[in-house]
Amino acid sequence: MGTKQDIEEGVEFAPKFDDNGLITAIAQDSQSGQILMVAYMNRQALDLTIQTGYATYFSRSRQKLWKKGEQSGHVQKVEQILVDCDQDCLILKVIADAGQCHVGYRSCFYRALKKNTDKKLKLIADKVYDPKKIYRKQS
Amino acid sequence: MGTKQDIEEGVEFAPKFDDNGLITAIAQDSQSGQILMVAYMNRQALDLTIQTGYATYFSRSRQKLWKKGEQSGHVQKVEQILVDCDQDCLILKVIADAGQCHVGYRSCFYRALKKNTDKKLKLIADKVYDPKKIYRKQS
Repeated sequence: MGTKQDIEEGVEFAPKFDDNGLITAIAQDSQSGQILMVAYMNRQALDLTIQTGYATYFSRSRQKLWKKGEQSGHVQKVEQILVDCDQDCLILKVIADAGQCHVGYRSCFYRALKKNTDKKLKLIADKVYDPKKIYRKQS
Repeated sequence: MGTKQDIEEGVEFAPKFDDNGLITAIAQDSQSGQILMVAYMNRQALDLTIQTGYATYFSRSRQKLWKKGEQSGHVQKVEQILVDCDQDCLILKVIADAGQCHVGYRSCFYRALKKNTDKKLKLIADKVYDPKKIYRKQS
């Protein structure tokens, strides 16, 4: 590991994986800037993403590598990978088709907290596909 | 806790804090869509953010609440809070002044992985302030 200054000011890519061997990765539409989803990568998922040019994550619930779109077909072509100051978080700038969230929306962030409340959400997007149709195919 | 369907399709805000009592929060410029930083909130930080309209996080390194800008003056006015499908990640749409990263950049994501390499970064932004001047004032 380098010094704090190396990590923050240097040009050596030294991604910092947490105690579970994971790093947070944000998929952001490279054109619109919309944040599509947040997931996690282990070293192997990151290497595969760099090598193939398509986003691969590590599923915490299934405890296995997960090429985004392997079931749904909704892959993410990675245009650029950004890293933050302390190198414990990545942004993937991606080109992706319409439906990126398994619930049926373009983005996983389809709800916002209502103004003047701390408990109620409102929908801010419409579904762009029917997940039942997509995921049923595979089972 | 609700069912998976309640959490994903419902309008009840039920943020899911991890084993350390934290939830990931992404600060995104509400105008440009630029991702400024990624940090963590505990329940109290989230409540304070909602109540005050200014971003408060929980510092993992210092293990305490941290109102963004308390030292630097670079506060984040929160316009909207979005939550993702499984409610374990938040986006804060914020209005923020120029320098949001403690290293001196607008965003913490000022470096990108160079094409055709897995080890070298390149700078993609210029510093917008001198952190030595800002942080020295406080010490």
